[in-house]
Amino acid sequence: MPPRRVTAAVLLIGDEILSGRTQDANLAAISRYLAPLGVQVAEARVVPDVHERIVEALSSLKAGHDYVFTTGGIGPTHDDITADAVAAAFKAPIAENPDALEILRSRYVSRGEALTEARRRMARTPKGASLIRNPVSGAPGFQIGNVFVLAGVPGIMRGMLEDVGHRIEGGAVVASRSVRANGLREGDIGGDLATLQAGFDDVSLGSYPFFRGPDDFGVVLVARSADAGRLAVAAEALAALIRDVGGDPEMIDEAG
Amino acid sequence: MPPRRVTAAVLLIGDEILSGRTQDANLAAISRYLAPLGVQVAEARVVPDVHERIVEALSSLKAGHDYVFTTGGIGPTHDDITADAVAAAFKAPIAENPDALEILRSRYVSRGEALTEARRRMARTPKGASLIRNPVSGAPGFQIGNVFVLAGVPGIMRGMLEDVGHRIEGGAVVASRSVRANGLREGDIGGDLATLQAGFDDVSLGSYPFFRGPDDFGVVLVARSADAGRLAVAAEALAALIRDVGGDPEMIDEAG
Repeated sequence: MPPRRVTAAVLLIGDEILSGRTQDANLAAISRYLAPLGVQVAEARVVPDVHERIVEALSSLKAGHDYVFTTGGIGPTHDDITADAVAAAFKAPIAENPDALEILRSRYVSRGEALTEARRRMARTPKGASLIRNPVSGAPGFQIGNVFVLAGVPGIMRGMLEDVGHRIEGGAVVASRSVRANGLREGDIGGDLATLQAGFDDVSLGSYPFFRGPDDFGVVLVARSADAGRLAVAAEALAALIRDVGGDPEMIDEAG
Repeated sequence: MPPRRVTAAVLLIGDEILSGRTQDANLAAISRYLAPLGVQVAEARVVPDVHERIVEALSSLKAGHDYVFTTGGIGPTHDDITADAVAAAFKAPIAENPDALEILRSRYVSRGEALTEARRRMARTPKGASLIRNPVSGAPGFQIGNVFVLAGVPGIMRGMLEDVGHRIEGGAVVASRSVRANGLREGDIGGDLATLQAGFDDVSLGSYPFFRGPDDFGVVLVARSADAGRLAVAAEALAALIRDVGGDPEMIDEAG
């Protein structure tokens, strides 16, 4: 029996992403971290710093996927409401976590900074949560059920992921192969590509045009599959398809 | 009566965004385009190139917001299935649009390229749709009801937005003012900021820490409001709050 498909959803929390102030980088980082573990990110949502919206989205996503990753809203200010919303989605009480408080205390004491009431808020977790280590700035994330609650600042978020991998039970690892065709346009190969896709039920083929200037454009064709043998066959077929229309296929190393 | 709040949702369509291959830039571009028109992006979702997922997300979003913007999936290849999914969400038939076909024909003829079957797919729109001009690469987007269907390639997407603004009926314009405090940490001001927020029901205050290095960190405090007078008051209050903890507030010009 082939390994099952394991999926995750990503929930990005924060007004600043919706307003365009901040360009999210966490979705791509989480996807790339999970792929080799055998987890595909199959859905993502961005919600504002509004309790009901977070609860609603999280309740839907945690029921529909094996894992959910949230980013943002776990800092020390009034708009950091993620822990409360996660507790509400799990119908769990929330309280100061002694281990989290100890982490915060030792960090701030060692730096000669005050453990203010605001900072102390970062020690609150839903009952039943386990902490996720923050190697960058101390204040931990947490896991409850199938939900991982991570920081929004990308450097901190990536640091926290290191304490996530060992908790994940992955399934089929979907690998990809990319073939670039400089100077080709999607319209020149779209028909052949559809025919090729129809012959592969275990490989998904994607086509991604790029335009960097009037003399620097082309298409990257990407094959994705959990079956390494079929993936190699598909990559060769993509290269042949490009040659057939007079192009010069170039196998490239590219994540995703 | 103050102008009403008008909201939009953004639906990003494409396996490549979920896999981390592509870093989305369209959400921020749409948000920044809409803000001065009096439309706030209040939710965003990312879905894969799967018919049911697109239909499901679109049906939910178009019922919950004044406007919906989709990006991606309107090119000439087999994985470009957005037009069909939008038609299904509106329970509308889909057919080749004569005006779209004429745009494609004249473009490809003028360039000496073939109007292949694959390219011709780009002329299909749901019944009742009006075309959205594509000043970059010809193939149009379309509007049906409160949904705007745009390209995924950022340069093309931004070009299409120019034919969107005049169709939008905006509401209250939410403006923002940002105050930067270099060297300050969120935990030093979180309590005061919460107190300040409690005094403003018509201004939303956000706090965004940045860490660019051990000697280059700080916080940007952002006030957002539809009331310019209250916004100015809030910005001054934020600056005073920073001064109170020994910081040096700097008013900065920043979108979002």
